[in-house]
Amino acid sequence: MSEMVPFQALPRGFRFGGTHCGIKRSGRLDLGLIVAKEACPAAGVFTTNRVKAAPVLLSQAHLKRSANRVRAIVVNSGNANCATGAAGLRASRKTARAAARLLGCRPEQILVCSTGVIGLPLPVHRIVSALPDLESLIGNRPQTYMEFSKAILTTDTHPKWAASSCRIGGKLVRFIGCAKGAGMIHPQMATMLAFVLTDAKAPAALLQRALREIAVRTFNTVTVDGDTSTNDTLLVLASGASGAPAPTRAKNREYRTFIAALEEVCRTLALAIVADGEGATRLVEIEVKGAASAKDARQIATTIAHSPLIKTAVAGADPNWGRILAAAGRAGVPLDPDRVEIWFGGVRMYGRKNGVGSSQPLRFSEKAAHQRLLAKQVPILVDLKLGRGTARAWTCDLTAEYVHINASYRT
Amino acid sequence: MSEMVPFQALPRGFRFGGTHCGIKRSGRLDLGLIVAKEACPAAGVFTTNRVKAAPVLLSQAHLKRSANRVRAIVVNSGNANCATGAAGLRASRKTARAAARLLGCRPEQILVCSTGVIGLPLPVHRIVSALPDLESLIGNRPQTYMEFSKAILTTDTHPKWAASSCRIGGKLVRFIGCAKGAGMIHPQMATMLAFVLTDAKAPAALLQRALREIAVRTFNTVTVDGDTSTNDTLLVLASGASGAPAPTRAKNREYRTFIAALEEVCRTLALAIVADGEGATRLVEIEVKGAASAKDARQIATTIAHSPLIKTAVAGADPNWGRILAAAGRAGVPLDPDRVEIWFGGVRMYGRKNGVGSSQPLRFSEKAAHQRLLAKQVPILVDLKLGRGTARAWTCDLTAEYVHINASYRT
Repeated sequence: MSEMVPFQALPRGFRFGGTHCGIKRSGRLDLGLIVAKEACPAAGVFTTNRVKAAPVLLSQAHLKRSANRVRAIVVNSGNANCATGAAGLRASRKTARAAARLLGCRPEQILVCSTGVIGLPLPVHRIVSALPDLESLIGNRPQTYMEFSKAILTTDTHPKWAASSCRIGGKLVRFIGCAKGAGMIHPQMATMLAFVLTDAKAPAALLQRALREIAVRTFNTVTVDGDTSTNDTLLVLASGASGAPAPTRAKNREYRTFIAALEEVCRTLALAIVADGEGATRLVEIEVKGAASAKDARQIATTIAHSPLIKTAVAGADPNWGRILAAAGRAGVPLDPDRVEIWFGGVRMYGRKNGVGSSQPLRFSEKAAHQRLLAKQVPILVDLKLGRGTARAWTCDLTAEYVHINASYRT
Repeated sequence: MSEMVPFQALPRGFRFGGTHCGIKRSGRLDLGLIVAKEACPAAGVFTTNRVKAAPVLLSQAHLKRSANRVRAIVVNSGNANCATGAAGLRASRKTARAAARLLGCRPEQILVCSTGVIGLPLPVHRIVSALPDLESLIGNRPQTYMEFSKAILTTDTHPKWAASSCRIGGKLVRFIGCAKGAGMIHPQMATMLAFVLTDAKAPAALLQRALREIAVRTFNTVTVDGDTSTNDTLLVLASGASGAPAPTRAKNREYRTFIAALEEVCRTLALAIVADGEGATRLVEIEVKGAASAKDARQIATTIAHSPLIKTAVAGADPNWGRILAAAGRAGVPLDPDRVEIWFGGVRMYGRKNGVGSSQPLRFSEKAAHQRLLAKQVPILVDLKLGRGTARAWTCDLTAEYVHINASYRT
C-alpha cells in the first residue's frame, strides 16, 4: 500500500477531505467528509449486532428513504456515539442537518458514521462548527482523499485504501475505497468502517445486491478477534460520472465486470484490516476444500480463524497442525479425521502416507516448517475429501501485544 | 484448595494411585490408576469434537457394553494419543488388555484416558510395563489419591480436587473428584479430564442421566479460550460401598440430594479449571438474567465468556462496560439496548437513571471500579429486563502470559 493514491485512481463526481474538529485529544484528524457533486445511488451493509450505534440506525433509515439520491457521508472518529441513548440519536440527526444545510439538500440525503469510544456523549457541536470550513477545503485530489482516509482512523497504524477499475460499454470506470479496522476490537474502540466510491452508473437496488453478495466473500470472511462491533458500516456511492452505461441485467458480462472490480477493492481493504489487526505480525489465509457443502467449508474456515490456539501458534511460528485438526473437528459439521489432509505454511503435515490407508501425522522438517511460518502471510489448507464445498477466511496472529493494547487502555 | 484431601472425604470401595512410567521427560507422574474393588456402575460425558482421540472412542465403546460393571480407569498424561490413526486405537486397546489381565476382568470393563501432545505415537509399552508395580502400590489413602490427581496433569499449575457428601437413607455417601484443565488450550496439549468417585449406590442409567444434567450446568459453562479439545472426558464411578440405598425414582428427594452433592464436586472442579487457566490471574463469573428464555440467557453468557475484548479488559482491571453491551448484542438473541442493565465488578455502569427513561451510561468512580476489578473474582451481571431466563458462565482473564505460553511452546 503506497503512501498516496494516484490521481488517475480517483472516481469522478466526488469531493472528499478531512480535518481535526477537536474530538481526538491528540490533535489528529477526526472528521471526514465525502460529497457527491450530484445526488447519487448508494448502498450499505451494517453491523448485525443488536446493539447498534445511533449513526448506524440513522444511516439505515436514511438509506431506506433516499438510496438513489445520497449527497454526502460525514464520519467522525474518536467517539462511537454508541450506547448514548436518545441524546446520541439527536447528535447524529444534528450532524445530518448541518451537512444538509451546507449542501442545500434534505437531511435524509446525508449518511453519518462514527467510530471510537463507546458510551461517551458525542461533542456534536464540534462537528457542526467544523463542517463549513471542511466543506470549503474538500476536493477531488489525492491529498484530500488521504486526509479523508486518515480522518476515519482510531488505533490503526496506517491509512488503508485500495483502487480498481474496469471498462463498461467501452468507458473507464474507477473504484476507490478506504477502511479503518484494527480497533474493531480495541478497548472501548469500536468499528470497522469502509467507504467505496465509484463513478460507475448503478441504481441503488443493483448496488445493494452487489454489495451484499461481495460482503459475504470479503469483509465477512475476516476476523481479528470475533468481536462484532456496534458500528460496523460498509458504504458505496456511485456517481455515474464515468459516462459508462449502468450494468442493467444481473449476471450479464458487464455486471460481472462491475462486481469483480468492486470485489477487488473490498477484498484488498478487508485483508488490509486484518493485516493491521491489533498487535498482528502475520496474515493467516485459511482455505477449506472438499467439504460436503460451501456452508460447511465456511463454518470450518471461520472456526479455524477464531481459534486463539491457532492464532498464538502462528504468532510463535509453531507448526502445531494438531490444533488445526482439533478446530476443524469442533466446527459442528461432518468430518472424517481418517480422510482429512492438512497443509500449514505450505507444508503437508497430516494426511494419507503415499496416498494409501488412513490419514496420519506425516514426517516433516520442524526447522523448515518454522521458517515457512515466519513469513508475513501464512497459508492454512484443510482438505476434507468429502465433497466439493470450498471457502476462504482470513485472520491475523494473536500476540502478547494484542493483550497489552487491550488490557491497558485506561489504567 | 488445600494440599491434601482428608481421609474422611474418600469414598469407600476404591483404590487409586499414580506413578512415573516414562512418558513425560520431566520425570513427573504420568500414569494414574483407579480400581473399583468390585465391578461397579459408571457414566461418562465426552468431547463433542468430531476428531476424537483413540482413548475416547475406546472408552465410549466400553461404557456402552459394560456401564454397570466397570473395574478401572487408566489415565496417562504427556501424550493425548490423538490423530495417531489405527496404531493409536491399538495402543489404547493394549492398555485396557494389560489392566484387565492384572485385575482378572474383561478389557471392556476398563476405561482409558490420555492427555498431552497430539499427533505423536503413544509409547504404550511404558504403560504396560509400569501397570503391575502401580497396581501393587495403589490404595484408599489421601496420599495415593493425591498421586492420582497429580498423574493426570499437564500444564496445570497445581492438582485440583473437590469433595462433598450427603445422606441417603440415613447413610453417609461420599463424593470426590479431581480434574486437569488449563492445558485444554495448550499448544499441542489437549484435554479437560475429570474423574468423580462416589460410594453411593446408583445404577449406570441413573448415573448417566445425572451426569448429563450436571455437565450442562458445570463443565459446559466454563471456558478458557473456547477451544474444545479432542480428549475431553468426565467419568463418574459409583461403588455402592456406603451401604446407602440407590435413589431410584428420578426427581424424588434422595435423587435431588444425590444430584446436589455430585453437582457440588463438578462445579468446584469446573471453576478450579478456569481459575488455573493458562496465564489466568482472575476468575470471571458471568450472570445473565431477564432474558426471554434460559437458552437465550445461556447464549449471551457464553458470548460474553468467549469475548477476548472482555477477557483482556478484566486482565487490565479496566471498567469497559461498553464491551459487555456489545458482546451481548452480537449473541444473536433478542435484546433491547434501551432496557439492558449492566453491573461490572459489582458496580452498576449502564441502566435507567433513577429508574426512569431509557438505559444510558451511568456515572461511577473509575478509580473505585478499577479497584473492584483487581479482585481475584470479578462478577459481571447483565439484566435484559425482557423475561425470566437466567444463566451463568465462568471464564478467566486473557493475559499476555497466555499468549507467551501458547506461542512459544516449541520454538
